[in-house]
Amino acid sequence: MKPPIEVLDIIKSKKSFLVFTHLSPDGDAFGSALALKFSLEQLDKKVELYSEHPIPVQYRFLPGIEFIKDINSLFIPNESCLILVDCNNPSRISNDKKIINKIKDFQGDKLVIDHHFEANTEYQSIKWIDPAQAATALMIYSLLKELNCTVTPEIATNLYTAIIVDTGNFQFENTDEEVLSIAAEFVKYGAKPSYIYQKSFESWSENRLKLFKKMLENVEIIPPLAIAFIRKNDFDETNTQEPDTERFAEFLRILKDVNISALIREIEKGMIKVSLRSKGDIDVSKIALEFEGGGHKNAAGYRITASIEEARIRLLEKLRVYN
Amino acid sequence: MKPPIEVLDIIKSKKSFLVFTHLSPDGDAFGSALALKFSLEQLDKKVELYSEHPIPVQYRFLPGIEFIKDINSLFIPNESCLILVDCNNPSRISNDKKIINKIKDFQGDKLVIDHHFEANTEYQSIKWIDPAQAATALMIYSLLKELNCTVTPEIATNLYTAIIVDTGNFQFENTDEEVLSIAAEFVKYGAKPSYIYQKSFESWSENRLKLFKKMLENVEIIPPLAIAFIRKNDFDETNTQEPDTERFAEFLRILKDVNISALIREIEKGMIKVSLRSKGDIDVSKIALEFEGGGHKNAAGYRITASIEEARIRLLEKLRVYN
Repeated sequence: MKPPIEVLDIIKSKKSFLVFTHLSPDGDAFGSALALKFSLEQLDKKVELYSEHPIPVQYRFLPGIEFIKDINSLFIPNESCLILVDCNNPSRISNDKKIINKIKDFQGDKLVIDHHFEANTEYQSIKWIDPAQAATALMIYSLLKELNCTVTPEIATNLYTAIIVDTGNFQFENTDEEVLSIAAEFVKYGAKPSYIYQKSFESWSENRLKLFKKMLENVEIIPPLAIAFIRKNDFDETNTQEPDTERFAEFLRILKDVNISALIREIEKGMIKVSLRSKGDIDVSKIALEFEGGGHKNAAGYRITASIEEARIRLLEKLRVYN
Repeated sequence: MKPPIEVLDIIKSKKSFLVFTHLSPDGDAFGSALALKFSLEQLDKKVELYSEHPIPVQYRFLPGIEFIKDINSLFIPNESCLILVDCNNPSRISNDKKIINKIKDFQGDKLVIDHHFEANTEYQSIKWIDPAQAATALMIYSLLKELNCTVTPEIATNLYTAIIVDTGNFQFENTDEEVLSIAAEFVKYGAKPSYIYQKSFESWSENRLKLFKKMLENVEIIPPLAIAFIRKNDFDETNTQEPDTERFAEFLRILKDVNISALIREIEKGMIKVSLRSKGDIDVSKIALEFEGGGHKNAAGYRITASIEEARIRLLEKLRVYN
């Protein structure tokens, strides 16, 4: 895989970049954006990163994370090039329509670098979208090699983190020879596997463990399906929040006879977030799409306005075909 | 790393091999032994594998696992060469003194290929022991390359399994550039990462999940320590056995402030098995050694005759220095 020539041309010609990533940013979002920033700075470019959400505790170790700015302070100089990283729809960047429109309406150069399926959006930009890639970080890596950038330990750490977060530390179906050999290259360039694993995945608070135990008390197993539930009360009683459920949805894959797992959580009364995970050829992104969500074949999600019980019934209707 | 010339000489000169591995065999034990068998058979050698314990469900997918024989049927022809794989002390092979002595007293050629610290034993054999290796599988791989064997998909699958089991799927401190790049080679040769991960790690029964929940109900967290307890009753009530606790000891590492985790389980009344896990530079093999156990820096274990409560107190005494 190589970056398209139009992408390279714009990056080479512009001097100033504003980089955005999606809401609820994860390791691939931050890692790809930060590696891109460090790489472009080697070419004497000016790069600003913006995010709406605060940095989750597990990503505070990422080199350069302190440079990420609050999107509410966004100002777009005319000569900028905007880059969406790890998402391809401006509405994924912010909950604030004004900010989304500021980006949509910007008349200068706009790029997208992403590995998610292309959203049905009218965002006018040069799009480099490759859903075959395990992580956006792999695209950033091919870009920075094409630009003859040096892979510093900071860049290697960001890209390694991005890869392990999007492959579930090399456990998901997107783990292939290339992913492992590129991960080995990042280690050669200074990424520390167990340190990065600990920071990214072994950073649970005791409260998060309490929430996890509550989830395990509320699991419905109907092989090949397993559905776990977290109610607003559970968050309140354990003093936790929605980002504390990262990777909870994966856990139920651990059951031999389970091929599809779902985590249904009540963010606010009547507002439900559902994460779906699958093994092998089962494509849960199609189910998420039916609820206007998105994602990848084996990991997808959506939001609906419903009660927990309604969300469960509506999901089970869609899953009936697998049962 | 290359195999010592004495090891190569013996393997080249002998025609018939009996291969043994440790009790409670894991992925590195089976994977290394099976890859060795398939490799030597390419050189027209005869190879028998022996194990005392039944094959745990998560390893029944390994190519060739059906060739493993019950050690109670052991017969040692005079011209054989015995190879201990993934252990270096014959007493780790069997609970039956007669079998251990049969191996110890054998007067023919004896080899050891292992990455565990050398036990204090008088076992007379040619020993290739390299505790710097993340898995015995890496030593088997270097051996089979030296012997010009072909890495078939069967061999690649066994060796990949061995590596992910001994590195916690690339999460432990022993994961380095070499481990990842060799894993990538195994994928090139036909190992399927997510399939192998699922078989090795996502093969829990619902009963095992019940046992896991019981363990989580009995966790003592005194940062940087976390100790979990499983009583004989817990096994009985969930219809599970000790092998069902594989990887349970790792789980508590997930807590940010925990650097040492222990799982204390009551195998029989008064018979306790303890597994220790640590992060970073903390060497739990030293603690295990004080109880006449063994293992690696970040993963070790031992058995003691005690009650759960006595085992807890005796462990806490040793751990006091870390608290």
